[in-house]
Amino acid sequence: MSDLPKKIHILEAGPREGFQIEPGPISTADKVRFIEALAETGLKEIECVSFVNPRRVPSMADADEVAAQITKLPGVDYTGIWLNLKGLERAVASGLHVRGRLSASASEPFSIKNAGLDLEGELARQREYVPRYLELGFSDCSLSIMTAFGCNYEGDTDPVHVVEVIRRSMANVEAEGARITRISLADTVGWATPIAIERGVGAVREAWPEVEVKLHLHDTRGTGIANAYAGLRLGVARFDSSCGGLGGCPFAGHKSAAGNISTEDLIFMCHEMGIETGIDLEALIECAKLAEEVVGHPVPGKVMHGGGLDKVRAQAA
Amino acid sequence: MSDLPKKIHILEAGPREGFQIEPGPISTADKVRFIEALAETGLKEIECVSFVNPRRVPSMADADEVAAQITKLPGVDYTGIWLNLKGLERAVASGLHVRGRLSASASEPFSIKNAGLDLEGELARQREYVPRYLELGFSDCSLSIMTAFGCNYEGDTDPVHVVEVIRRSMANVEAEGARITRISLADTVGWATPIAIERGVGAVREAWPEVEVKLHLHDTRGTGIANAYAGLRLGVARFDSSCGGLGGCPFAGHKSAAGNISTEDLIFMCHEMGIETGIDLEALIECAKLAEEVVGHPVPGKVMHGGGLDKVRAQAA
Repeated sequence: MSDLPKKIHILEAGPREGFQIEPGPISTADKVRFIEALAETGLKEIECVSFVNPRRVPSMADADEVAAQITKLPGVDYTGIWLNLKGLERAVASGLHVRGRLSASASEPFSIKNAGLDLEGELARQREYVPRYLELGFSDCSLSIMTAFGCNYEGDTDPVHVVEVIRRSMANVEAEGARITRISLADTVGWATPIAIERGVGAVREAWPEVEVKLHLHDTRGTGIANAYAGLRLGVARFDSSCGGLGGCPFAGHKSAAGNISTEDLIFMCHEMGIETGIDLEALIECAKLAEEVVGHPVPGKVMHGGGLDKVRAQAA
Repeated sequence: MSDLPKKIHILEAGPREGFQIEPGPISTADKVRFIEALAETGLKEIECVSFVNPRRVPSMADADEVAAQITKLPGVDYTGIWLNLKGLERAVASGLHVRGRLSASASEPFSIKNAGLDLEGELARQREYVPRYLELGFSDCSLSIMTAFGCNYEGDTDPVHVVEVIRRSMANVEAEGARITRISLADTVGWATPIAIERGVGAVREAWPEVEVKLHLHDTRGTGIANAYAGLRLGVARFDSSCGGLGGCPFAGHKSAAGNISTEDLIFMCHEMGIETGIDLEALIECAKLAEEVVGHPVPGKVMHGGGLDKVRAQAA
């Protein structure tokens, strides 16, 4: 009936996406405590911080300290993001796991508001990164397509345009001696529905059957987990998500921008459908409760309240 | 790729499911105001009240007054539920729209806790209702299957058992001279995943291709809208949902029982996928805000915060 994967890989984005948008100060110690608790659940990739301008994003001013203070578990990639070469150098110096990350937006108005760059500017930025990535040993890069399904400034995103932006990025990067081996389609401002996921993922798959597709989904309008299910049906096996549903996009031009889909809600659905994640749901529920404590307000996750079913099943049996 | 319906019918259950579970007193006037606002959105079926024992469910003690005070719009069915013949007679006297409603539980332990009846008792209760339904002119009845996907007391529900409970109910009702023409599969305590929906709906469809299948979904563990999408893919065109995601089940044996899927989140997804509902999303978002005001605490709907996309599209164009 579908191509559900046997196992998926999750990038836990809560510490970065979630803490970035919080207005209240969150202590470095709390950030580290949360990241360390996440690593204990079986998560293998945790996006811990943004190496960005502290004047623009004050909540990430302690990114270097957070990175330095994490007691790392073997086998877990602790990562960060950057928006320019200066941020990349901070990431390299931080000792976090660095890889070849590139991005482009399917919407120029969004990219201009988000990063001050039109598409030509984004391509130029890609060309700045690649030589440094090659020096660091990363010839294989991932490409994130922002607003891959729609944008508050430009409306619906045509998958044909997404494919065109990817095609230009690939040619751009290949001319510099690297290549794009993974594409992340980001529903940055929550426009996607399951059908849009089918169309977007389908268009990319058709153009590049060998390239891995990942989904980065925000649950702005309640369709996030349904969108993930649509991706799973197509065999998508990599997702970004946030413990407790933490987060949001500060540049989305919409005060109600919501966080990523909740990691524990996603893995609940996966486990119940026989898809492995390698993550301990009960431990992750405890992390979501810790997230709520750290940010000091309710977070939108559902399973953290409803509970997993394994214990209920055991009692019922 | 799928059998998405062109149009769906929604039973708005918020006033009944939602207000039933609220601890605080909600005035009759507020209930009536909310129901009347819902009817203005294009909803064609609104479950307004439960005609149940006021000692057992004090929040529904004013059911008869609510029913009497609604200013009704033509073309809208204002309905209620009942759990015994006495409740049915109250519904008939109330002037609300009455139809042939029957139920059975896929889990005996749930039914015993919920209604004090084992399966034999539920079948006996069906036989009590049918003669009265026939007097009232209803030879076609709907059958709700509670805990159709899982139960906190008994664990996972086997679709084979669901089919058996339906088969026994059908024979039981036919022997009394009526018939079952619609089956509602209720995920009463939030166990379903999209795959469970496919299995459950598939099993019922295979046994009775001519019988209409409806879904009643609680969003206890974040999979509610994904489950609705799984139903839509199978051509299911009738759903129960609650404005704002109001509600929960007071007998579910779980303090965190959540409400139905949010009506506005469901219709947002439908409209964005080209499925008609006949409902004005923006008007329904205003109802969800009214629901929040009436119950005095946040409700879980997402689109009420994220907003619909039609206005954003118009501004972006």
